[in-house]
Amino acid sequence: MAQEKNITKRDDDFSQWYLDVVEAADMAEHSPVRGCMVIKPYGYAIWENIRDILDRMIKATGHVNAYFPLFIPKSFLSKEASHVEGFAKECAVVTHYRLKNDPDGKGVVVDPEAKLEEELIVRPTSETIMYSMYAKWIQSWRDLPVLINQWANVVRWEMRTRLFLRTAEFLWQEGHTAHATHDEAETETLKMLDVYKDLAENYLALSLVPGQKSESEKFAGALRTYTIEAMMQDGKALQAGTSHNLGQNFAKAFEVMFADKDGERKHVWQTSWGLSTRIMGGLIMTHSDDKGLVLPPKIAPTQVVIVPIYKTPEEQASVLSVAQEIEQGLKAKQILAKTDNRDFLTPGAKFNEWEKKGVPVRIEIGPKDIASGKAVFVRRDTGTKQAIEISPLAEVIEKQLQQMQIDLFEKAKAYRKAKTFHIDSYEEFKKVIEETPGFIYSYWCGSEKCEAEIAEETKASTRCIPFDQTEGSGKCIKCGRAAEKKIIFAKAY
Amino acid sequence: MAQEKNITKRDDDFSQWYLDVVEAADMAEHSPVRGCMVIKPYGYAIWENIRDILDRMIKATGHVNAYFPLFIPKSFLSKEASHVEGFAKECAVVTHYRLKNDPDGKGVVVDPEAKLEEELIVRPTSETIMYSMYAKWIQSWRDLPVLINQWANVVRWEMRTRLFLRTAEFLWQEGHTAHATHDEAETETLKMLDVYKDLAENYLALSLVPGQKSESEKFAGALRTYTIEAMMQDGKALQAGTSHNLGQNFAKAFEVMFADKDGERKHVWQTSWGLSTRIMGGLIMTHSDDKGLVLPPKIAPTQVVIVPIYKTPEEQASVLSVAQEIEQGLKAKQILAKTDNRDFLTPGAKFNEWEKKGVPVRIEIGPKDIASGKAVFVRRDTGTKQAIEISPLAEVIEKQLQQMQIDLFEKAKAYRKAKTFHIDSYEEFKKVIEETPGFIYSYWCGSEKCEAEIAEETKASTRCIPFDQTEGSGKCIKCGRAAEKKIIFAKAY
Repeated sequence: MAQEKNITKRDDDFSQWYLDVVEAADMAEHSPVRGCMVIKPYGYAIWENIRDILDRMIKATGHVNAYFPLFIPKSFLSKEASHVEGFAKECAVVTHYRLKNDPDGKGVVVDPEAKLEEELIVRPTSETIMYSMYAKWIQSWRDLPVLINQWANVVRWEMRTRLFLRTAEFLWQEGHTAHATHDEAETETLKMLDVYKDLAENYLALSLVPGQKSESEKFAGALRTYTIEAMMQDGKALQAGTSHNLGQNFAKAFEVMFADKDGERKHVWQTSWGLSTRIMGGLIMTHSDDKGLVLPPKIAPTQVVIVPIYKTPEEQASVLSVAQEIEQGLKAKQILAKTDNRDFLTPGAKFNEWEKKGVPVRIEIGPKDIASGKAVFVRRDTGTKQAIEISPLAEVIEKQLQQMQIDLFEKAKAYRKAKTFHIDSYEEFKKVIEETPGFIYSYWCGSEKCEAEIAEETKASTRCIPFDQTEGSGKCIKCGRAAEKKIIFAKAY
Repeated sequence: MAQEKNITKRDDDFSQWYLDVVEAADMAEHSPVRGCMVIKPYGYAIWENIRDILDRMIKATGHVNAYFPLFIPKSFLSKEASHVEGFAKECAVVTHYRLKNDPDGKGVVVDPEAKLEEELIVRPTSETIMYSMYAKWIQSWRDLPVLINQWANVVRWEMRTRLFLRTAEFLWQEGHTAHATHDEAETETLKMLDVYKDLAENYLALSLVPGQKSESEKFAGALRTYTIEAMMQDGKALQAGTSHNLGQNFAKAFEVMFADKDGERKHVWQTSWGLSTRIMGGLIMTHSDDKGLVLPPKIAPTQVVIVPIYKTPEEQASVLSVAQEIEQGLKAKQILAKTDNRDFLTPGAKFNEWEKKGVPVRIEIGPKDIASGKAVFVRRDTGTKQAIEISPLAEVIEKQLQQMQIDLFEKAKAYRKAKTFHIDSYEEFKKVIEETPGFIYSYWCGSEKCEAEIAEETKASTRCIPFDQTEGSGKCIKCGRAAEKKIIFAKAY
């Protein structure tokens, strides 16, 4: 259905390249509703794979799924001061519950008599509505921990949107837990960050740095926010998932309390953590190339496409029969294979389409191949093309897919390493961020003033204080005062 | 977490019994947002099972999933006249996109400067937004059929709500397809009704009648609506899933056209079909009893619960060890088993809790049982209690679960049969609907006047014209005019 269109080169215009890749792979497009995207079947199939893997991980760590209302009463949002401060400017507000015929006979209008007493906010995140329920559900230490996750759509009004990366409505999961102690909540917060890291590295093959957000970058209402920051092919950072230790901020606002073993009534300690369709943007910007999308095998909806090549009806019959055998052999190994037997497209058009869609492996099979007992195998990421024996083909492909998964991750890590700079001088900092953007590790005194000035002067924001801090201490890159830790600065999505 | 509470008897107050069962099983509860429910983890786990089974069926019939915006511009909803007529009175309307601090210092208020130029409707169903995209995507016969499904939340403002059965927000899937011909669309419509019937009968063990809706009961904008109408234990009908042949109504409103093989530009033929969390209500009202929820094994999140019985720490150790063995044996057969080893509850309290949650099979195991090489097996639906050998236990349980699935379906069918009446006289009709409500099969002339008068006088609505019509022709139950077909009348949810 997609129109044929050339993909802009990454080096010429990275932003346009990104949009071209999304369009060429038929993953998503803008809808007539400002800021809202349509996730098309191919894009959604990739998201379903990511979602299913993450859902299994979330359940394996003891969490259960549930579902809470789309709407949040305005007064709930206001209960935690810094929370409402963080979200008020981007809320979609429901004010009425009925339409009526326009008295002027022109379609329908909002019925002024159906005005809500209290406006409802379309959830930008669900802390407030969920914790109002937790306050009812939690009575004693026996009810703890509460380990609930929700898959949902959320809305944050955005003026400037980009498919997957920034849309008014997006899909995500949000975990919300309640614990008896601060330490248990902290352990949970870090455990879930680790789950995100596992997903991002071992399935999506993203290269990232886990760490802690600065005070100004933390979640509205949290004590501490942890993040995984992935590096894109233009050297920019993408926040791929965050996990928040909420402390007792919301517990106090919503009176979420429990009778502890010692008989005392205490506020619970809470966490929340979320990962969204935004990570699809990170996936695209990490691996894809000038020919289009490149997908790691573990999350590809189709891992192998078999393209039959024939001229006569006799050739068609025999080639399709061998293609079927190959497909069955691959499926027997749980490899997601399919034969493209559309007869109104040339093999060349098919090659092109599957390349744009990032299918990891292509197998070409024609009469000459069959005669020699071989098929042509092409790997999407490297473009490697080789003849392989038809008979043990499934084993070879299986190994190649495993290898491709590893290679993509190694390549992403190598790229991040090449674009990682430890910098001590602000002059050099400004030069690097301008000329070879990447992750800049620098000492920072912790003041919001330095952070804001750097952002103002260089457009680089603090991404995270990496957990992994090998060195001792130093001087703030901006003000020169003593600093304990390095933080990563980068331009970011 | 749920409070202990007695369940009202079905015969005393069916409505209250229903709510008590939902509460006792800890499935869902009302939220602070009027008309919106919270689906709690146990209720959501059942919905996830239903969703996953249906999702596989939808994919197995060639459909793909996608995701479209939550919001629909008001003008889109108005494009198909009878569609907007059907939904205008129950629309949640977004009018603003920002909050701001109250100038009076009291929390936040809607920012009057952030008023949308065109109001957005929270989707009550997605025909309009989806087909505005289909119009772009479909160009030629090669693009057909389009077979897309979406899992989503939708909002239809309701004044009187009941958990699962009628809520302002609910979860569902909505399939939306486009075809080259009327006949292909009709085949699709009936195929998906059949998928719903398969799910409802063979997994949820509902007893139902498939058929066609009358003109007044059909979907707003459809040519024809097909339905499966399930019978509840109070003799009322529950519409468990509907499939619509939309004809070319929306195709004309949204200009969804294709160049056919003959070179002519034609409007596509469309279908839509949906099944929602409402079916959870049907599940509860079909099988449950005065002790609480009863679940068919195929959709139970836990199929077997093992309750260890012990007094001393020594007994606890040996009993838990045997319980573990039993659990492993069951899991090896893909049976969803779990051991309830909470040590702050008595066995009696556990029996009670799992009965209320409808777990199909309970196994009790104590020191005496172990000594005799047996365990106590209790079936939730029948209450049958028997000693069974521990060693081939998994095989026995597996057969019992299969048998229970069959028995529940047979019981539901027998109940429907007993409450099905073929009636020729309107006097008798009124008596039956009042005294022994059920499905009444009567001839009907097809006029909306008769249909409306019957509804007015008896509270019974037309449910469907059953596909299965064994008899010839007769006279309308109301006006006495000649009638070709029988229709089912019933009180309904």
